[in-house]
Amino acid sequence: MKIQYDVLKDLVETHLLDFIPQVNPLSQTLFDSMEYSLTGGGKRLRPVLLLASCQFCGGDPMQALPYACALEYIHTYSLIHDDLPAMDDDDLRRGRPTNHKKFGADIATLAGDGLLNTAFEAMFKDMFLYFDQPDLLKRRITAAYRIAEGAGVQGMVAGQVSDVEADHEQNSSPEMLRHIHLNKTAAMIKGAVSAGLEIGGAKQEVKDHLRKYAENLGLEFQVVDDILDVTGTAEQLGKDPHQDEANGKLTYVSLYGLEGARKRASQLTEAALAELESYGEEAEFFRDLVVKLEKRTH
Amino acid sequence: MKIQYDVLKDLVETHLLDFIPQVNPLSQTLFDSMEYSLTGGGKRLRPVLLLASCQFCGGDPMQALPYACALEYIHTYSLIHDDLPAMDDDDLRRGRPTNHKKFGADIATLAGDGLLNTAFEAMFKDMFLYFDQPDLLKRRITAAYRIAEGAGVQGMVAGQVSDVEADHEQNSSPEMLRHIHLNKTAAMIKGAVSAGLEIGGAKQEVKDHLRKYAENLGLEFQVVDDILDVTGTAEQLGKDPHQDEANGKLTYVSLYGLEGARKRASQLTEAALAELESYGEEAEFFRDLVVKLEKRTH
Repeated sequence: MKIQYDVLKDLVETHLLDFIPQVNPLSQTLFDSMEYSLTGGGKRLRPVLLLASCQFCGGDPMQALPYACALEYIHTYSLIHDDLPAMDDDDLRRGRPTNHKKFGADIATLAGDGLLNTAFEAMFKDMFLYFDQPDLLKRRITAAYRIAEGAGVQGMVAGQVSDVEADHEQNSSPEMLRHIHLNKTAAMIKGAVSAGLEIGGAKQEVKDHLRKYAENLGLEFQVVDDILDVTGTAEQLGKDPHQDEANGKLTYVSLYGLEGARKRASQLTEAALAELESYGEEAEFFRDLVVKLEKRTH
Repeated sequence: MKIQYDVLKDLVETHLLDFIPQVNPLSQTLFDSMEYSLTGGGKRLRPVLLLASCQFCGGDPMQALPYACALEYIHTYSLIHDDLPAMDDDDLRRGRPTNHKKFGADIATLAGDGLLNTAFEAMFKDMFLYFDQPDLLKRRITAAYRIAEGAGVQGMVAGQVSDVEADHEQNSSPEMLRHIHLNKTAAMIKGAVSAGLEIGGAKQEVKDHLRKYAENLGLEFQVVDDILDVTGTAEQLGKDPHQDEANGKLTYVSLYGLEGARKRASQLTEAALAELESYGEEAEFFRDLVVKLEKRTH
């Protein structure tokens, strides 16, 4: 069956709340706050990539769903914390008030914590189903580890810290920019693809190609984000543009200008496509995706 | 071998940084900030309980160490986030400036996120060592799940949300107080004991008794915390006393007075001891602990 973005995205959105444990009514606000940010739309890029990667190597996307949703919980927590007054202090996200604007910074902090924890709880619960199938169990532990690795102090959190610090410390070196892009964005996208491939049982060669593809896709995605912050409108972005500039952020545009950034996005697309050369029509989804993401307006 | 608090505490403190992945020097602040809060002292109650529970049922505490340290990472993240200006806004913790006073609220938020994520990464990494021992592997997955459950939206995070909300909403019912104490504090202590028993391979009967013991111990611990906020000095506590009152918190003391709280602490100690009745000298550690924690001054 052909891999289709919209089909996988629907699957994620239909089941996105299924893996959250029952919250005691006395803490109802916690659930409301997590739900608010989870159901705020978005591309669902990371979970879709996870499901697509699983399907690509012959796995059943339905079986990868807890991991895809876990990944979206992690992505959502990172946005909630990133928007906090102590961080980027953003009022709008996807055209709606940010979590802390609606629930307060205390609840928003805890909703983020709750989502991150829930991601792991959901994956452990899924593992229980495979206690009698050691090989499938090991793949799932490896998948969960790949997600944790991409999200953690060797991945996304490290990227966020450097992102916050780059302006404070006036470290605007090319090395720092690459470190931020690799960790803040590419690490989780690579984690998504890696996890999907683990669950689907991919061969090592496929893992090698697709992980490099994902890294280039992730870098391209962030360069385009940097461009859109300058060229996009509030309507297109669902948030105020020019925030990077206002916050004195180190971005591809601030370092190399708009044209430099556009050229780089195009190079990264090519590099991602090159990893797919030995695959035929079955890799069409991944080719389309990287091209579309370069041309996106939001 | 006799279970000794100080021996297990030393074990935790000696290895506490061993399970943190190498952080890129460009994100050195992230490591510094996590390390700062991890090495700030404290009782190490939760990891010691985990190791002691493992030892109690014949397990090797050394094998439970990654889980004990993971638990301390989670406990430490919860303290960092709890101290944030958007939460309790505390300046002092264990006699030193709180994480955000030293590193700023943005880095402190991310250090907390990093610690929570690292806890799970550490446990996954340990699981890789047991891929060829299915029974030991399953016990470790179950242990990790017990920790996640105690820390998450059915446990600690739910308790924190209600703790924050209890004054806002002026919900000071006995049900709400019990909900807060059970979740904010007892859930993680129960998670610690449960995880240790899983790794040690305890029988169901032992699990039933010790989990109830842990719940009562956790409730007792929080009631005594509520008392110390009123009766303790800054020197004893390592932080300013009377913070609960200043923040309008719902505590056992605010609802039942000092005498009511002391009586309750004593009842909870008795209830915890009752769960140990069918055990002999080998349960001495757990008996001593619950009695000592009732009488503590910090």
